[in-house]
Amino acid sequence: MNIKITGTGSYIPANIEKNENFHSHEFLNSDGSTINAPNEVIVKKFKAITGIEERRYAKSHLNTSDLATFAAEKAIEKAKINREELDYIIVAHNYGDVRSGSIQSDTVPSIASRVKHLLRIKNPKCVGYDLLFGCPGWVEGVIQANAFIKSGIAKKCLVIGAETLSRILDPHDRDSMIYSDGAGAVIIEATDDEGGIITHDSATFALDEAHFIFFGQTNNQNSVDNRRYIKMYGRKIYEFALTNVPLAMKSCLDKSGVSISDVKKILIHQANEKMDEAIVKRFYELYNMQMPENIMPMSIGKLGNSSVATVPTLYDLILNGELDNQEINKGDVVIFASVGAGMNINAIIYKQ
Amino acid sequence: MNIKITGTGSYIPANIEKNENFHSHEFLNSDGSTINAPNEVIVKKFKAITGIEERRYAKSHLNTSDLATFAAEKAIEKAKINREELDYIIVAHNYGDVRSGSIQSDTVPSIASRVKHLLRIKNPKCVGYDLLFGCPGWVEGVIQANAFIKSGIAKKCLVIGAETLSRILDPHDRDSMIYSDGAGAVIIEATDDEGGIITHDSATFALDEAHFIFFGQTNNQNSVDNRRYIKMYGRKIYEFALTNVPLAMKSCLDKSGVSISDVKKILIHQANEKMDEAIVKRFYELYNMQMPENIMPMSIGKLGNSSVATVPTLYDLILNGELDNQEINKGDVVIFASVGAGMNINAIIYKQ
Repeated sequence: MNIKITGTGSYIPANIEKNENFHSHEFLNSDGSTINAPNEVIVKKFKAITGIEERRYAKSHLNTSDLATFAAEKAIEKAKINREELDYIIVAHNYGDVRSGSIQSDTVPSIASRVKHLLRIKNPKCVGYDLLFGCPGWVEGVIQANAFIKSGIAKKCLVIGAETLSRILDPHDRDSMIYSDGAGAVIIEATDDEGGIITHDSATFALDEAHFIFFGQTNNQNSVDNRRYIKMYGRKIYEFALTNVPLAMKSCLDKSGVSISDVKKILIHQANEKMDEAIVKRFYELYNMQMPENIMPMSIGKLGNSSVATVPTLYDLILNGELDNQEINKGDVVIFASVGAGMNINAIIYKQ
Repeated sequence: MNIKITGTGSYIPANIEKNENFHSHEFLNSDGSTINAPNEVIVKKFKAITGIEERRYAKSHLNTSDLATFAAEKAIEKAKINREELDYIIVAHNYGDVRSGSIQSDTVPSIASRVKHLLRIKNPKCVGYDLLFGCPGWVEGVIQANAFIKSGIAKKCLVIGAETLSRILDPHDRDSMIYSDGAGAVIIEATDDEGGIITHDSATFALDEAHFIFFGQTNNQNSVDNRRYIKMYGRKIYEFALTNVPLAMKSCLDKSGVSISDVKKILIHQANEKMDEAIVKRFYELYNMQMPENIMPMSIGKLGNSSVATVPTLYDLILNGELDNQEINKGDVVIFASVGAGMNINAIIYKQ
């Protein structure tokens, strides 16, 4: 028995938020002091580091559970399965449904229950739950689905990553330009087909790193409310990721028995272009190799960082031929890898 | 190989909130109309239905992750394991850390990462994630840990249920008297010892039932803010639970091959005393039996409904001899069962 992804789907929100839209923002340092540069320069520098030109925000009447459902519908269609045969709906997210204009996360019922409701699935044996694991949540959901299938309690699982980071960002924080909304979904099944999940690895670094990404107040110290927003220590995350992600990927690949030269694509969480490139470069350095050209498809330039949604969305775009010069063919070995709040890291060695 | 609970722990918050403390509340119907009864009568009726005399609220400087950590420390100590050997920390909750005075749920980093941080666990291979599954979250965490151990990716797991419902209740809603704070934790291990998890079952009813428990506005229609609170359709939940929980428990027990007459205790989610009794009564009726006396230990009278925390707390109290006239001995068959937001139902047949 192999365990394979048999269908993918993604939902890319309609609202395009271009870098120019931030030219009129009042960006401040975290201590509230003004930044000694015009916004045009701040935004240009931001673009040079992250690679982000524009990002997507969900329309105001849509929530994370809606985005998740749109992506799920496509994955179900692609996999050509009867939705009533699903054993699990696993939804990775971080903040639940945050209605436009609200500052509260709505997580009861779970997003998975909402998705199941919206998908009109009747079968009560289809169990829906939410998984919180920072940005690597979708990859972790695939690992959990794999364990359920292996242990005999599931045959078909729907794993979704969905997020609306546009609803929880501090408009006075430069880092907020990174965040985006989106959803990606896959169907995972036990199959006699060749390939599938070969090995996987997960890790949580929480001794010193737990609060590298956190919930904090606005940079605008004149603000009187105590509302909190997504915040991060970018430099610390960069150093952490550069040290630990390549090692985790290597450990996972070595365990798989697959040669590094047989790896066709690395689908890494779209966190920040420069960081992602540095990670993959260092990964190849661990094998005394240069990073092959075109090995690392990127969508961050146009889609920003939509947390749990980036990896499944990227995968779906490639399979659909919607990413220039990128393809994944039957038999290709692909690495899925992610890093994010927790700090969590994971990787999957997968054969298409 | 068997999979057993080798250590338990619970944390019961210090602040006792007695029913009398609600005598001065302004309770309103959900349409904002006044209730034609003095508070003393409302509270007395509430006590008669739910069995709740008092409940526990966490001290204001403590959050869900703190409660979870206190319970986890005890479970680790009881299991006599080296915490660095844990493969998973699974935390079931619903609202994350809600600081006293804040209306926001803080779930980034995950509560599991916070717990791991507070437990000072260094090993990055100990993976921490949060599981959202309504009140049955802790039982579901045990089921997931069981799957991880069976599939070969874990040997020892820490599964926690922790919640601070006192931080998200509407003071104008009578139902708010139900809610409580607390945490329970267990260590689950692969062992050569006899007994352990025999069978389990889970279900999600989301077609019509998804929003029986939901996030809604205050009953006080004079309120101007759009803050939302935990809300429920009590009558619908009662009918749903009475129909579906006994059937789920029966299906799980029948699958196990254990005779109903060998069941020693039923540890059911402490939702509401009358509802719990009606569920267990009907469960026995499915076997044409009368409910045996003392089969269903209850803690709701003094501890209220602390969601995910009730079942592990109840189990811990019994094992510690802290619940009058209740004990579980080696070889006893116990049913863990829960129902809650989702609507989710689950059950485990377990041999001590």
